[in-house]
Amino acid sequence: MNDAGQYLAHMRARAPLVQNITNYVAMNVMANIMLAAGASPAMAHAQQEAAEFAGLASALSVNIGTLDPEWVVSMEGAARAMNAAGKPWVLDPVAVGATALRRDAGARLLALKPTIIRGNASEIIALAGFEAAGKGADTADAVSDAEAAARALAGQTGGVVAVTGGRDFITDGRAAYRVAGGHALMPRITVLGCSLTGIAAAFAVDQPALPATVAALAYYAVAGEVAGKVAAGPASFQVAFIDALFNLEPEEVTARARIEVV
Amino acid sequence: MNDAGQYLAHMRARAPLVQNITNYVAMNVMANIMLAAGASPAMAHAQQEAAEFAGLASALSVNIGTLDPEWVVSMEGAARAMNAAGKPWVLDPVAVGATALRRDAGARLLALKPTIIRGNASEIIALAGFEAAGKGADTADAVSDAEAAARALAGQTGGVVAVTGGRDFITDGRAAYRVAGGHALMPRITVLGCSLTGIAAAFAVDQPALPATVAALAYYAVAGEVAGKVAAGPASFQVAFIDALFNLEPEEVTARARIEVV
Amino acid sequence: MNDAGQYLAHMRARAPLVQNITNYVAMNVMANIMLAAGASPAMAHAQQEAAEFAGLASALSVNIGTLDPEWVVSMEGAARAMNAAGKPWVLDPVAVGATALRRDAGARLLALKPTIIRGNASEIIALAGFEAAGKGADTADAVSDAEAAARALAGQTGGVVAVTGGRDFITDGRAAYRVAGGHALMPRITVLGCSLTGIAAAFAVDQPALPATVAALAYYAVAGEVAGKVAAGPASFQVAFIDALFNLEPEEVTARARIEVV
Repeated sequence: MNDAGQYLAHMRARAPLVQNITNYVAMNVMANIMLAAGASPAMAHAQQEAAEFAGLASALSVNIGTLDPEWVVSMEGAARAMNAAGKPWVLDPVAVGATALRRDAGARLLALKPTIIRGNASEIIALAGFEAAGKGADTADAVSDAEAAARALAGQTGGVVAVTGGRDFITDGRAAYRVAGGHALMPRITVLGCSLTGIAAAFAVDQPALPATVAALAYYAVAGEVAGKVAAGPASFQVAFIDALFNLEPEEVTARARIEVV
Repeated sequence: MNDAGQYLAHMRARAPLVQNITNYVAMNVMANIMLAAGASPAMAHAQQEAAEFAGLASALSVNIGTLDPEWVVSMEGAARAMNAAGKPWVLDPVAVGATALRRDAGARLLALKPTIIRGNASEIIALAGFEAAGKGADTADAVSDAEAAARALAGQTGGVVAVTGGRDFITDGRAAYRVAGGHALMPRITVLGCSLTGIAAAFAVDQPALPATVAALAYYAVAGEVAGKVAAGPASFQVAFIDALFNLEPEEVTARARIEVV
Repeated sequence: MNDAGQYLAHMRARAPLVQNITNYVAMNVMANIMLAAGASPAMAHAQQEAAEFAGLASALSVNIGTLDPEWVVSMEGAARAMNAAGKPWVLDPVAVGATALRRDAGARLLALKPTIIRGNASEIIALAGFEAAGKGADTADAVSDAEAAARALAGQTGGVVAVTGGRDFITDGRAAYRVAGGHALMPRITVLGCSLTGIAAAFAVDQPALPATVAALAYYAVAGEVAGKVAAGPASFQVAFIDALFNLEPEEVTARARIEVV
């Protein structure tokens, strides 16, 4: 992990088509963030096309933010299509502990063994079946409180689990990394976490999931630091952040990434 | 109402989880506006979880912007949950006069006696059963033309009714206030009204609805004035406006609020 | 077409109510772009009101971006209402070649003879039944590769077809125009094309469709040039672009428009 920028360079060269079955709040900003990074996002959720569309895409992200039972069927169909094709997919278990509908959807998607799971601490804790403090989209637990849950989930799926927050924690159940950076304004802007899930999906195309995820988070953290230097509040932060995702060169990401082996 | 800022301070200290069953156009910006102000918004609309989610939230906003008959069922369930728990909920009757579907939804939600109703003049007039000039999301009536309708609605629900526009009018059927401020660009940006509905819901947590609504509108109007000083058009206005909501201190809101007792 | 600005002036004076049955990704930005230009957008999609709402609107845009079979029924109903009333409607066939659901929806809407079709090259080629290279929302074909498809579609519908990209191509099957301008960042920002579809719908109210479409595209291209001069990346471009749509005067559009008769 001495060269996080190479994963960015690889992703940009590939410009992968990534299908996103995501929540209504995230769709626009997530698409813009993925375009700025260099991916080609597409949002397609209908049961009649979700799995077919997955056949065209190089990766998939699934997000349960504004959940509906019918969408869960599409999510499962698309995830199965990715699994069958050996392509990566990422689960974002938004507010998974809040209601029975979410707990059930989380369990069903978890059973399909996502390549990567990315959530905040409360979500990772709840998805692992542990007791979380936070119920909504915002976390009420610290990243460090979710490390055991992350390791447990990774053991269960055989995939990568990333807990994002003040300092991110990423593990495949054996190795583990921490990524520092970002900015204090980031939790005051909605769907930056959801959008990072899409970035992780794009980075994981044709790459091993663990370093690709670490690199995606490091890239995001560096962009957050860049944006934080010019932002006057959360909205100008978002503008500067997306511009930074677009302007950052791989070399700069490598030089500024703060990745630590646990 | 000499200290509008204290309601902002109270809301920020509480950082209430507010559930929003709102339209697709509003979801992202509304969440960002509520986060910038200091609340914790969550969007959850499915019939299978709307009422359950309402049990976790401290307040609810219901918005009929991109209406669907199934969503009305969720709105009613969540509103009933708030009523049963004695928690505030706010109705935003977007374009309620436009179609039979909207008139029916408006009547059904009105029957559940929202704590607060916030709309533009045409919407308040139409919801009260009077003859409105505007049919779409934009108003074609002046705030002053909607005062009688607002008083009638407040009498009917026992709650607060706010008509927002050039100069806002707020009443509980007995007392009434006017709030001045804002900026001429605000009607040229979508969902600023919808988002204000969410702010009013957050302000009303553990506070009497009438002064909380007046304070929410005054805070919004001051932020509009701040943003108007630097905006070069509607998009830069929106960025500056959200930054201002984040940066405004309670004392500044109190000092700059232009609230008039009617 | 020596006075593109007059179409902008006409649209602003009319401020038409335009109904948009569009995708979730586009809704917010499309509404803001239409408001900035001077139109009055409304998003209403439910089967129970789509056709009724169309009766209130002066124009309609239909976009199949985040498609669902039930929405297609609403799209057809609203399009039929516009046809019956002699009012213009515009089809945006997002990713029409990607899946069977999209191909079917595209064919059904095409059979209703849209006043205007606006898409990128891959979409126009796929809608015409030709072989397209691009499958997702991004094009993989050049505008010039889609000219024959555009002419074929226009012959089939009797309407106008616009292929947008580096240099736009617009035809009614007989006459044809090219519009230059815009900026290289525009494909890196989602839903600018979708939003242009709404602008074209607003321009076509009470105007002949061919010059109205050409003028709408020229206005957009000039705004893109203005924004490109100050943008530091895609997000600041979007802010500057919407501000430019708001600030541009008809005379400036006429003076700067780069329209070529084919």
